[in-house]
Amino acid sequence: MTQITAEKTSVAEIGRRARAASLEMSKLSHDVRNDALLAIAHALEAASEKILGANQKDCRAAEPLVATGKLSSAMFARLKVDEKGIRELAMRVRDVVRLPDPLGRRLAVTELDEGLTLYKETCPLGVIGIVFEARPDVVPQVASLTLKSGNAVILKGGSEAAFTNEALVTVWREALRNFHAVPEDSIQLLHTRADVMELLTLSHDVDLIVPRGSKELVEHVMQNSRIPVLGHGEGICHVYVDRAADMEKAVRVTLDSKVQNPSVCNAAETLLVDEKIAGEFLPKVAHELQEANVQIRGCAKSLAILGRSIAVPAQEQDWSTEYCDLILSVKVVRDAEEAIAHVNRFGSRHTDTIVTEDMGTAKKFLDEVDSAGVFVNASTRFSDGFRYGLGAEIGISNGKLHARGPVGLEGLTTYKYKLIGNGHIVGEYSSGAKHFKHRQLPIS
Amino acid sequence: MTQITAEKTSVAEIGRRARAASLEMSKLSHDVRNDALLAIAHALEAASEKILGANQKDCRAAEPLVATGKLSSAMFARLKVDEKGIRELAMRVRDVVRLPDPLGRRLAVTELDEGLTLYKETCPLGVIGIVFEARPDVVPQVASLTLKSGNAVILKGGSEAAFTNEALVTVWREALRNFHAVPEDSIQLLHTRADVMELLTLSHDVDLIVPRGSKELVEHVMQNSRIPVLGHGEGICHVYVDRAADMEKAVRVTLDSKVQNPSVCNAAETLLVDEKIAGEFLPKVAHELQEANVQIRGCAKSLAILGRSIAVPAQEQDWSTEYCDLILSVKVVRDAEEAIAHVNRFGSRHTDTIVTEDMGTAKKFLDEVDSAGVFVNASTRFSDGFRYGLGAEIGISNGKLHARGPVGLEGLTTYKYKLIGNGHIVGEYSSGAKHFKHRQLPIS
Repeated sequence: MTQITAEKTSVAEIGRRARAASLEMSKLSHDVRNDALLAIAHALEAASEKILGANQKDCRAAEPLVATGKLSSAMFARLKVDEKGIRELAMRVRDVVRLPDPLGRRLAVTELDEGLTLYKETCPLGVIGIVFEARPDVVPQVASLTLKSGNAVILKGGSEAAFTNEALVTVWREALRNFHAVPEDSIQLLHTRADVMELLTLSHDVDLIVPRGSKELVEHVMQNSRIPVLGHGEGICHVYVDRAADMEKAVRVTLDSKVQNPSVCNAAETLLVDEKIAGEFLPKVAHELQEANVQIRGCAKSLAILGRSIAVPAQEQDWSTEYCDLILSVKVVRDAEEAIAHVNRFGSRHTDTIVTEDMGTAKKFLDEVDSAGVFVNASTRFSDGFRYGLGAEIGISNGKLHARGPVGLEGLTTYKYKLIGNGHIVGEYSSGAKHFKHRQLPIS
Repeated sequence: MTQITAEKTSVAEIGRRARAASLEMSKLSHDVRNDALLAIAHALEAASEKILGANQKDCRAAEPLVATGKLSSAMFARLKVDEKGIRELAMRVRDVVRLPDPLGRRLAVTELDEGLTLYKETCPLGVIGIVFEARPDVVPQVASLTLKSGNAVILKGGSEAAFTNEALVTVWREALRNFHAVPEDSIQLLHTRADVMELLTLSHDVDLIVPRGSKELVEHVMQNSRIPVLGHGEGICHVYVDRAADMEKAVRVTLDSKVQNPSVCNAAETLLVDEKIAGEFLPKVAHELQEANVQIRGCAKSLAILGRSIAVPAQEQDWSTEYCDLILSVKVVRDAEEAIAHVNRFGSRHTDTIVTEDMGTAKKFLDEVDSAGVFVNASTRFSDGFRYGLGAEIGISNGKLHARGPVGLEGLTTYKYKLIGNGHIVGEYSSGAKHFKHRQLPIS
């Protein structure tokens, strides 16, 4: 079985193979990368029996964990794959084929001088390490994005899905072996936590680490690696209802931001309300929140308005807590200024929204809130690669460097400067014999 | 004196003040930022006596170091500032005023649905920490770039220039105090190595560290910080002379790449020569290199061509050594394929050039060499922010994430997604009541 062979290969060797594969991949045209993806989609469907068999092994091993409460039934449901699930996996791969080529895109063209032209063009990052938890559908999702963007990928999935992940990667590699043009080592799988620790040290051969999973996983990765990490530890998102808010929109946006899916990072955790309209707005929204079983943890002013039968007192730590649950902290603020200061102090720079009809205040909020997503009159839940129209998402970044917010194919690329001359030397410019033109040319 | 007051402020407090200043700066228009820079340029000229006095103190303290060989005379020359030097510092600040605004630039506009539009716009990174060695002209250069891009900066210069740096920062802050609109704490100075160690831990308040100086400084910073670092440890740049090279261009490009300024990171360290033309080319270039006092360290094949009176044998470590000196390692390779493999194995992903008249081989080199700058028929020395037409340079990055190669104002920005709706909620899209349009709109 593949697992045994793979375990014989050291993680350092896996890194070297991935680097070598990534250098090969930089030669591949968009058509070749797309044809490989189509071949893989076909191979996944053709191997559905094998994949389902492996998944059944994982599920059988997980059943006792569910019975003893070590694995939630929600997690178990996400582990399970059926025939329809496999068709969906293949469909997702085909969706990526339809996205535009992220490589060789010209970002700038500058004529430095007669016959000396500088091109700034996108190219692959190289080798991406992706560490994720349980869900096996992550494998084809991220592997299709890395292949499309000309990168090699090293994957480590959750142990609950070990057999399924192994089967998916094996099918993927077999499809590449039959397809020829793309190196098999463009996708490799790690098996243990110790492997991950070693992966995090391979700063020479790995260009980016993407942790997808719990806050603990992300922090563990960030603390143990000098390789750049693309991820987000927390999502403490805010809804601010301004004095000039439309009440009906404010209720809709608050409810959707909190309850549409409370367990995810772009759900709201804190509601800020301008004191000028708190008396009118808070009872309205509290009624709807109660209908949706949301616990309200209020500041002193909101408690005074709502009463203790509707809200419990918020503690200081509530303002910096990601509940991922049907709980909402509520604070009455003096004005937009105080709301912005609160968001910048307690938020996690993920996504924050203002509800207002005053476009001056909206502009202030948009400019001054230091978050990856800043919204006006829209739910925080829109902060997502698919909803943004990026086509697919490798993850969401809370960092400000390289890629911010939902990250699609573009975040898996870098750029290089290509300079085409005709024997040009710097000496002639230093001596003053020649002078730079620095003329920006159209990109086309 | 300011130094004493500043030393009373803890580095953590300096970080908090910088963060607060950076949030204020996100409100400033391009005109205000430019007017502040003009006021500062004027203040620098007006305070030239004070700055020169401080510089004289530094120079007097440095003289014994030069006498005992602890400071090179080149370093001493770069430490010294005169009247003309101050006018040049002010001129550089005015140059930055003329650059286009890097903020609020639209990168993409997407209509997600009727009345729901997503704008991807550039914005400041926040707080930049810059650690540099001796040269005091770095202070106005980087501080004008950070102010122009709406960032706060924390600086630590070399101890040799302590009085000069202190004077420059004091003048800068006084100018901001008189100008009012830009917070004084947008520029702050650290004084000791211990301060730098503390700065490197402030991941909450500092968004980017830029080390400018020796390889040791850059590695020290990279090893001791979880904050993203923009810098480069080494510049091992290659010139590859292909079988289809024009001999005259090949000699010009090799000479300029090696000797135009051998002590800098974009100078060439290794010359690769196709075996098909080595017999003709090597004696020609060796003659010119010898005239320029360059020591040649050759592989066995190049030694066989040149003879041991002209070249000494290269050791394995020569291929991965940045000489920063009049030394060049020379290797004869089978073909472009081997040259590319050598560059990707031993290079530092900085800048590499091919000399060839064969555009097919040139394209292969451009696509497959994994470096920030890949050139055809041009000297490696062109790899520089000013020569690229970026207007100014905060540093050169060997990393692939965020910014690569010479980094100008753009590398000091990130982006945010601004979403403008009219009470839009995700629930209606999840339920299928509404559908996304995802229409890319012109950026305008």
